[in-house]
Amino acid sequence: MKLWQKNIEINKEVEKFTIDKDREMDLYLVRSDILGSIAHITMLNSIGLLTSSELSQLLIELKSIYKSIDYKQFSIEEGVEDVHSQVELMLTRKLGDIGKKIHSGRSRNDQVLLDLKLFTRDAIQTLTKEISEFINFLIIQSDKYKNILLPGYTHLQIAMPSSFGLWFGAYAESLVDDLLLLQAAYKICNRNPLGSAAGYGSSFPLNRQLTTDLLGFDSMNYNAVYAQMGRGKMERTVGFALAGIAATFSKLASDVCLYSNQNFEFIKLPNEFTTGSSIMPHKKNPDVFELARAKCNWIQSVPQQITLIINNLTSGYFRDLQITKKIFLPSFEELSECIRMVFRMIQKIDINTHILDNDKYSFIFSVEKVNELVLQGLPFRDAYKQVGLEIENGNFTPNKKVNHTHEGSIGNLCNDKITAMKELIIDGFNFEKVNKAVQNLLK
Amino acid sequence: MKLWQKNIEINKEVEKFTIDKDREMDLYLVRSDILGSIAHITMLNSIGLLTSSELSQLLIELKSIYKSIDYKQFSIEEGVEDVHSQVELMLTRKLGDIGKKIHSGRSRNDQVLLDLKLFTRDAIQTLTKEISEFINFLIIQSDKYKNILLPGYTHLQIAMPSSFGLWFGAYAESLVDDLLLLQAAYKICNRNPLGSAAGYGSSFPLNRQLTTDLLGFDSMNYNAVYAQMGRGKMERTVGFALAGIAATFSKLASDVCLYSNQNFEFIKLPNEFTTGSSIMPHKKNPDVFELARAKCNWIQSVPQQITLIINNLTSGYFRDLQITKKIFLPSFEELSECIRMVFRMIQKIDINTHILDNDKYSFIFSVEKVNELVLQGLPFRDAYKQVGLEIENGNFTPNKKVNHTHEGSIGNLCNDKITAMKELIIDGFNFEKVNKAVQNLLK
Amino acid sequence: MKLWQKNIEINKEVEKFTIDKDREMDLYLVRSDILGSIAHITMLNSIGLLTSSELSQLLIELKSIYKSIDYKQFSIEEGVEDVHSQVELMLTRKLGDIGKKIHSGRSRNDQVLLDLKLFTRDAIQTLTKEISEFINFLIIQSDKYKNILLPGYTHLQIAMPSSFGLWFGAYAESLVDDLLLLQAAYKICNRNPLGSAAGYGSSFPLNRQLTTDLLGFDSMNYNAVYAQMGRGKMERTVGFALAGIAATFSKLASDVCLYSNQNFEFIKLPNEFTTGSSIMPHKKNPDVFELARAKCNWIQSVPQQITLIINNLTSGYFRDLQITKKIFLPSFEELSECIRMVFRMIQKIDINTHILDNDKYSFIFSVEKVNELVLQGLPFRDAYKQVGLEIENGNFTPNKKVNHTHEGSIGNLCNDKITAMKELIIDGFNFEKVNKAVQNLLK
Amino acid sequence: MKLWQKNIEINKEVEKFTIDKDREMDLYLVRSDILGSIAHITMLNSIGLLTSSELSQLLIELKSIYKSIDYKQFSIEEGVEDVHSQVELMLTRKLGDIGKKIHSGRSRNDQVLLDLKLFTRDAIQTLTKEISEFINFLIIQSDKYKNILLPGYTHLQIAMPSSFGLWFGAYAESLVDDLLLLQAAYKICNRNPLGSAAGYGSSFPLNRQLTTDLLGFDSMNYNAVYAQMGRGKMERTVGFALAGIAATFSKLASDVCLYSNQNFEFIKLPNEFTTGSSIMPHKKNPDVFELARAKCNWIQSVPQQITLIINNLTSGYFRDLQITKKIFLPSFEELSECIRMVFRMIQKIDINTHILDNDKYSFIFSVEKVNELVLQGLPFRDAYKQVGLEIENGNFTPNKKVNHTHEGSIGNLCNDKITAMKELIIDGFNFEKVNKAVQNLLK
Repeated sequence: MKLWQKNIEINKEVEKFTIDKDREMDLYLVRSDILGSIAHITMLNSIGLLTSSELSQLLIELKSIYKSIDYKQFSIEEGVEDVHSQVELMLTRKLGDIGKKIHSGRSRNDQVLLDLKLFTRDAIQTLTKEISEFINFLIIQSDKYKNILLPGYTHLQIAMPSSFGLWFGAYAESLVDDLLLLQAAYKICNRNPLGSAAGYGSSFPLNRQLTTDLLGFDSMNYNAVYAQMGRGKMERTVGFALAGIAATFSKLASDVCLYSNQNFEFIKLPNEFTTGSSIMPHKKNPDVFELARAKCNWIQSVPQQITLIINNLTSGYFRDLQITKKIFLPSFEELSECIRMVFRMIQKIDINTHILDNDKYSFIFSVEKVNELVLQGLPFRDAYKQVGLEIENGNFTPNKKVNHTHEGSIGNLCNDKITAMKELIIDGFNFEKVNKAVQNLLK
Repeated sequence: MKLWQKNIEINKEVEKFTIDKDREMDLYLVRSDILGSIAHITMLNSIGLLTSSELSQLLIELKSIYKSIDYKQFSIEEGVEDVHSQVELMLTRKLGDIGKKIHSGRSRNDQVLLDLKLFTRDAIQTLTKEISEFINFLIIQSDKYKNILLPGYTHLQIAMPSSFGLWFGAYAESLVDDLLLLQAAYKICNRNPLGSAAGYGSSFPLNRQLTTDLLGFDSMNYNAVYAQMGRGKMERTVGFALAGIAATFSKLASDVCLYSNQNFEFIKLPNEFTTGSSIMPHKKNPDVFELARAKCNWIQSVPQQITLIINNLTSGYFRDLQITKKIFLPSFEELSECIRMVFRMIQKIDINTHILDNDKYSFIFSVEKVNELVLQGLPFRDAYKQVGLEIENGNFTPNKKVNHTHEGSIGNLCNDKITAMKELIIDGFNFEKVNKAVQNLLK
Repeated sequence: MKLWQKNIEINKEVEKFTIDKDREMDLYLVRSDILGSIAHITMLNSIGLLTSSELSQLLIELKSIYKSIDYKQFSIEEGVEDVHSQVELMLTRKLGDIGKKIHSGRSRNDQVLLDLKLFTRDAIQTLTKEISEFINFLIIQSDKYKNILLPGYTHLQIAMPSSFGLWFGAYAESLVDDLLLLQAAYKICNRNPLGSAAGYGSSFPLNRQLTTDLLGFDSMNYNAVYAQMGRGKMERTVGFALAGIAATFSKLASDVCLYSNQNFEFIKLPNEFTTGSSIMPHKKNPDVFELARAKCNWIQSVPQQITLIINNLTSGYFRDLQITKKIFLPSFEELSECIRMVFRMIQKIDINTHILDNDKYSFIFSVEKVNELVLQGLPFRDAYKQVGLEIENGNFTPNKKVNHTHEGSIGNLCNDKITAMKELIIDGFNFEKVNKAVQNLLK
Repeated sequence: MKLWQKNIEINKEVEKFTIDKDREMDLYLVRSDILGSIAHITMLNSIGLLTSSELSQLLIELKSIYKSIDYKQFSIEEGVEDVHSQVELMLTRKLGDIGKKIHSGRSRNDQVLLDLKLFTRDAIQTLTKEISEFINFLIIQSDKYKNILLPGYTHLQIAMPSSFGLWFGAYAESLVDDLLLLQAAYKICNRNPLGSAAGYGSSFPLNRQLTTDLLGFDSMNYNAVYAQMGRGKMERTVGFALAGIAATFSKLASDVCLYSNQNFEFIKLPNEFTTGSSIMPHKKNPDVFELARAKCNWIQSVPQQITLIINNLTSGYFRDLQITKKIFLPSFEELSECIRMVFRMIQKIDINTHILDNDKYSFIFSVEKVNELVLQGLPFRDAYKQVGLEIENGNFTPNKKVNHTHEGSIGNLCNDKITAMKELIIDGFNFEKVNKAVQNLLK
């Protein structure tokens, strides 16, 4: 069953080629598709294109299908092209021709646009919560280890004192900024394309504001031609935000892989999360972090993958856009899994609390000494020369007590500010509005 | 003169290789560097690391250099490594050792981080204004040509009626969404890294809140380690936003190239902006749009270029980051030029107002006819069959009067809503705050 | 069963995360894995690490498993990590401890390196044959339609006469060049990594030349450290070649989408391969070409996806490399499907043989006229002026008989040269050598 | 002066926008342009479109200009659009109207195609020689340090004994494989596009075989439409090869940055090539390697940059292609500089010859011990258990004498084979043929 089916039998191989992974990918979109249909038919009734009796029959069935998904009872049947056809088929089995009316006044183009947006804003909400919890944890770790020093590197050369407090907190703050980008992507996503039909609008007197309100969107994608342009663009934009988050996790994983190397030994990974070799007892391969890094690096390629497909296409729908689904839709799960695994691992790592006991790190305190002398009144030039001479003559003794007090330094991490910044950003998503609208629709 | 100069003579070829394009690139950063120094020394004075007399001498000189830039009198001298060294050199020539004091309590790492952010937020402001003006123009064009129809395509197959009103408006709305992403990038940029020193903070009692306020930043990059992580990340993030804008212009240019092709003839480009062939008089090569498309496609590669450089590096500064400058800094100019050229061209294109007189487009009205019959009360199935038969029998006569009324359709473009959305976003940048702070610093 | 299993129970979620898609991906590698083991144990026997009786028992079982794959009876069991473990498990079930001996003197690192290379060189051979057949077909089409003209475009502006002969032939020759790149990738692939163990070689007196000969490799990856470096590098390199081929198909698909548009109408696609709209009878959506284009554009992103994962890693194995499998391994099938579909479609397209009857294309003959006059002895300048005036005065009458005679022009397509070039390249792969070696091993 | 100049004055800003960096970029192409013209006019004379007297006058002037380039006396004048126009202008200044005749029978399209190919094959020749010399050096280093062990890592965990012999040799062999890819790119490049005119051939009776022979090409790009398709494709293909080489250098630089870190201390960089800090005497920042890595990572983005510009364009010339020049042309120099700098640095690094004296590396010999026992006749299982127990009980004493004998292992580096492989590949380029042809043309 294909909505555009012509009399001529479509070649089987063509069918396989054109459906591609859609029957698998569209499972991501089932809930969204039903939700969109509920809003759409409610609107159709309001403009007289559906009777109230038809509406209520359809609503009962759609909500019933929606609930069935919870029980993993949903699947796209063999021979059914996509989720839109499957839902319509289920309705017509139950309700006959009334089932077909859910398609009035829309095209598969605005239907899939809508499904993708409803799915994505939901996925972003889930992701945001996971990131928020991980940030909270990083802040706790940062506070807990604020007095544990480690050497800071520049050019991968030992340079200055740093701390685990700084290190954990840095990733917390990085994710806070990443949430800002994600929010912009969310807002670009959270506009209603329904009613743009095949990308040029419709002669039906649709009430697009109504579906916008029912679905809790911030606004419409007003212009119908632009609404269609959003296909691919939305995915690329959200892809940018996912790439940003993935980059932070990739860097964190890189640090962990280096720090758990035996030449560094800054941290130790738990046995149950590492692989090893029975006769090289020192080996604790950080597989989870390596894989998280690699997966996050793959996610960083998502926007470019999408761009290569949609670029240089003129305006209007092209079938090419279908292929973006199998790149985009699974990327949320891929990222979430990395976050969850890194989260669980980080909770169990052992921090080496005596790193700086090793003399090889003594010189990281030389700048401290100079600054100390300067603050005691010595001109910088003299302080500098004095410390330089001490080092040259081999009688430099580092004072390993670090006294950094300014905002964002070892002694003043500003973790409360970072947390506050995060909370403000999360408020800005205004997820409640969307959640309430969805609850109302399903009630 | 290099800040880190050691006794050993640095090999000339190494010098060339390591300075790379910096002396050219750093010219983008001169104003920002001076501005940052003004804020920094004001803070140094407040914490007692600079006397008020030293401060006022330095301020006079710095402001004087800042003004000299307006007259294109600034250049980085042969043998001087970068802008930071050049400014310091100019100060010491005038003021002797006092000049060197501007470097107290900071590192070149946080200095360049600051310079890049001050430059970028300024460049984003300029870009936003250019885009805003172009949106205004597109809205005017959309209103002006709202009744001029053109065929809408799906799969590049003639499909439905569209209009120049829709077409111009679509790009206006696309740019509005692009501004949202740009704003997120702006906010991520608009945080103060100064005081993070070499990425691990400092033992000086710096007042980072003061420089944050003086420079009009939204907040600090609190965590010193994170502040350093921002190098490359900020550029990539802003690169995402530039890529988004560039994608919109690339698509617009693609449309123009197709529409001005003689098989389409939807628009004509002005002679003075095209190249041609003296003996193929029909030829009006849309070089400007082709080049704008290509340049915008290049800009779309900027984030990936940066990612390839910064990816898989552990935390802490690496010299690798220098190379991101020559990718990132010129990309604003490249994009602005494209916008300006497209703007000027679009103002002069001739719109073909009689496209749909051609019979080849008649069938685009078939869906209209079906919908019309449905709205008159005929069941969809019957309406559909009737029109299908008319077409089959060759007696389908299109009613070329399109009556689309819903939001975002041919007859109801919602350009006022799009404009309002744009204004709201531009307000959200809060450029005034930054501009006022800068004016105060230079006063 | 995991080869590196430690006493501590591995967390289930970690297991899922680390196995990732390997149980699915490794199915691509089964035959290669068995083939590699056959060669390896033959060598082990030759250096005294396996008795001849053990060898013959193992060979019987391995060949039996190899054959079972033909009947789709192979699968990696639940709880078994990868193909290497599955094969070993099957052997030990039959042969007890002898089964474990196939792993002596190698590591999973060189084993998977080998499997990937054996799979890839086989996949390249298949691909090369498909491309070769498609080239043959294009050449036939080129010859068949050598006299059917179409307008040639520059800047998408009508410019000069072209022909379907040229058009088909161009893609044939493009693919011939693409085969050259594929051959280089093949040669880089076709070197034996077996014996490099975990990337640092082994203290066993392995005979790597023997396995090189048995498996029909061109040479070894000599240096053990380099052999390991080949992981990811080989995939990226082959990815370059696939991207090159994909780019050619993407361009071909773009041409078809444009040429079948109603403003062009250069070709018509067969009904059974297009989708449409019952009430827009003119619509024949070129879905297959759009999807082929999109899929080929995705393939063009493969090398970059791999690069993002392997870049900036130091030498030596990292678990990150595993993730390249799910990008790389399915890309051959994806490309082959595109080739097969395009092949079938192209066989059925209708060529419009009267394109140039349309007056709009008249001016493409103006350059011809000028050249004709020049060849008749008129100075270029005068010829040019004369034709220019004719056009200006509206009395230019094109002579639509095109007389191009030089190599590679409309009248002299050189298809025989292109075919000869292709044959030479295909000979250069020397597939026979590899096929004979494999047959010998399985005999 | 623009070859396509129309009467209407071209807007200045448009001119700037459309010329872009061409006047700078075209300097890369001057020699090639002249060489191409010499071959072209020799052919024109052979088919009677140029008298022998005209030919000899033009040849004298062209050779004179060619020589002037050696003395850096060439520049593209203000107001002159590109190299083709500049050369023609210089000829007409000397010879009057005869100068213009060099353009007969070709278009700027095939002219620039030819220039790019002549430039590129020359640049590839230079690059190949540089790489070949570097390989030779790496082989020397590999032989010199073949007995100096270092720990080999997997997962960045200490794993097995390796050696500097293996390490240097690995990069030598990597570059040998990279040369294979470069050769394929060279061969795809080394085909003659001249005579394809604007992409559709010409009605002039050109003798393309003659220019092919004169310029020493392997063959023509036969099909004129394909010849034009080569624009962008050639650059992307060569870009793949450059990316491959750059990836090898990037990895080498990553290793050096890690190995010169103080936690590793495997190598020491010379003072004159590092930057440091006067009061952190341990700091030797490996700036040159970091920059080489970053630059090589940028080169790895070159093919993707080009792809984004040329992708989804239909066949035929587009102005977009111009923009590929500024990405592609400078990338050779960028890569060569990296190679030269890395070469010079590697010559001066200090190898730590006592790395394995440190007890932390003892366990890397555990596998050796097991294998040793197995070779002495102990069953693997028992050998493994014995060594495992020794380690557990703390009485494992490593035998640090490594006895690896197989091909490509520590004791048998096969450097002669790697060198032989390299020589064979370099012979395959057949540079002599091209060089001889060029010498003949200039004689």
